[in-house]
Amino acid sequence: MITPVQNAALAAQLDNAINNKTKPLGSLGALEALARQIGLIQNTRRIKIEQPAILVFAADHGVVAEGVSAYPQDVTWQMVENFLAGGAAINVFAAQNNCALRVIDAGVNHDFGPRDGLTDRKLAHGTHNFAHEPAMSRDLCETVLAAGMALVAEHPGNVIGFGEMGIGNTTAAAALMHKLTGIPVAQCVGAGTGLSAQGILRKQHVIEAAVARHVGVTDPLDVLATFGGLEIAMMAGAMLKAAELRKLLLIDGFIVTSALLVAARMQPAILDYCVFAHCSDESGHQQMLDALGARPLLNLGLRLGEGTGCALALPLLHAAVNFLNQMATFESAQVSEKSE
Amino acid sequence: MITPVQNAALAAQLDNAINNKTKPLGSLGALEALARQIGLIQNTRRIKIEQPAILVFAADHGVVAEGVSAYPQDVTWQMVENFLAGGAAINVFAAQNNCALRVIDAGVNHDFGPRDGLTDRKLAHGTHNFAHEPAMSRDLCETVLAAGMALVAEHPGNVIGFGEMGIGNTTAAAALMHKLTGIPVAQCVGAGTGLSAQGILRKQHVIEAAVARHVGVTDPLDVLATFGGLEIAMMAGAMLKAAELRKLLLIDGFIVTSALLVAARMQPAILDYCVFAHCSDESGHQQMLDALGARPLLNLGLRLGEGTGCALALPLLHAAVNFLNQMATFESAQVSEKSE
Repeated sequence: MITPVQNAALAAQLDNAINNKTKPLGSLGALEALARQIGLIQNTRRIKIEQPAILVFAADHGVVAEGVSAYPQDVTWQMVENFLAGGAAINVFAAQNNCALRVIDAGVNHDFGPRDGLTDRKLAHGTHNFAHEPAMSRDLCETVLAAGMALVAEHPGNVIGFGEMGIGNTTAAAALMHKLTGIPVAQCVGAGTGLSAQGILRKQHVIEAAVARHVGVTDPLDVLATFGGLEIAMMAGAMLKAAELRKLLLIDGFIVTSALLVAARMQPAILDYCVFAHCSDESGHQQMLDALGARPLLNLGLRLGEGTGCALALPLLHAAVNFLNQMATFESAQVSEKSE
Repeated sequence: MITPVQNAALAAQLDNAINNKTKPLGSLGALEALARQIGLIQNTRRIKIEQPAILVFAADHGVVAEGVSAYPQDVTWQMVENFLAGGAAINVFAAQNNCALRVIDAGVNHDFGPRDGLTDRKLAHGTHNFAHEPAMSRDLCETVLAAGMALVAEHPGNVIGFGEMGIGNTTAAAALMHKLTGIPVAQCVGAGTGLSAQGILRKQHVIEAAVARHVGVTDPLDVLATFGGLEIAMMAGAMLKAAELRKLLLIDGFIVTSALLVAARMQPAILDYCVFAHCSDESGHQQMLDALGARPLLNLGLRLGEGTGCALALPLLHAAVNFLNQMATFESAQVSEKSE
């Protein structure tokens, strides 16, 4: 079970520490809220970031048979190879920010064989096509969730960023968003990796027809099994375990947020542990964030996935920790306080 | 003279290099625009960030006698001491991001004596009170601008962030904004370091009365001399020289942007060299940015000054440079291209 982070006495101590730093009250804006949140998550005033890592979950999606992606399915495994070779955006940004990167095969439709740097948790070679049948059975979905939990249970560090790769996964994420928030499908679908307006409309119709076919599915786990992806399910499990272990969860874009949406419908207290890295340019993301009451740190028009938003937001987490730990107080620096 | 960065052939090369990276077209959003801009500024596809530094200009303001700040004037020199001791927010964020920090006394009303780490360019112990008389003479203003230019002429590195400290300087900046954009004073004034609603209204009235007193002042240099600050003028000179030398200018919040506004009225091509670090929570900043056609990278509710927004945005500049230099191409990584 995930424990809410409420601790009024600690919150007051954190506010006091933040307010005594040599700066106008509240003038560090979102960084002050972040320092406070990190304190509450870590249950201490002595906050720190230890061994931050981004876990990138990759898997394939049967629904690509409906022509919902601008790229062929092979790009999923090709990009996994790119991650392993160090050539993707997430490699560059993680390295720049001294963040570990771990690539997990959560169900890619390709046999990599044993590979350095690839964590094999494949339970299926991609999902079924949810236009015709559930993406996975409820049993498989539970097993995938458990695999995500187990992965995080053995993972070091107190900050985990979540990233993903999976051609077709904005379609799965949009379907989850619609089912779990009630927002019309037309507002949940977007261009993904770069669909035309016509392609977006096709994607919308595929989801609407699938929703009609699988009518009556409402339980979050059933919704996840019916419309989700293996990487989305494994992320949801990993997120639930990370929050249970009081780690900070750094949430990336549209697909990662859809996994959190599932997890939050299971255990709402998980949101106390989440920092939202950015608002994606994928059109439904803002509304999905709104549905979670989330205020993202960055808004750079990114729509790349892979956890790139997490890697780019990490320096802001360090800034929040560092100002609280390192700045002088009005007293220690002998600076006069507000006079008005 | 500042040269516009137009170079169509190079722009096409940069776009081509950006678009061939292993990511959906345009999916790195603002970072792609940034990489392109850096390439045009540096006039090469081989972009790099060398010896980035933040220059913090400090000075005092005669207009504080009108009760326009929530903090006493002594806080200016006390915060300079805090910078020198390493205890301010800008020290923490600059150190975190491997950015050099240089503190310049541009006219603080305090005698520091010779001090390690403090660059003394003081030409006056603060400005006159512009409620009654011009803040400085046109001669002094020109000398201060030249001092800023000389400072940058001898400064290494190709990225300069600008920061400031000066109790009362949001009042000067708001007056400059009003005079140079025509936006009503009521929309230019804000809470600064934390004025009450009543304090903000007083600040507005002080500026309105001063504008009426100094009616007919319209030339940018005269406006700067009449309503500006020594740190603002020195920054404007430093900015003009930095752009002339084809350095990238990283622009912080409300006061730094007001200095740029002056510089841009003198030489509009300076804007080609500017990256806007963030949108401040100081109420006039968004409109000032709009007046410059600027799109800031961050929006974190900061209103601290000191160049803190620059330090926090620096990792995004590195990210722009790094993705262009380090990411694989579709060809090199053997990733399939868009099929739709």
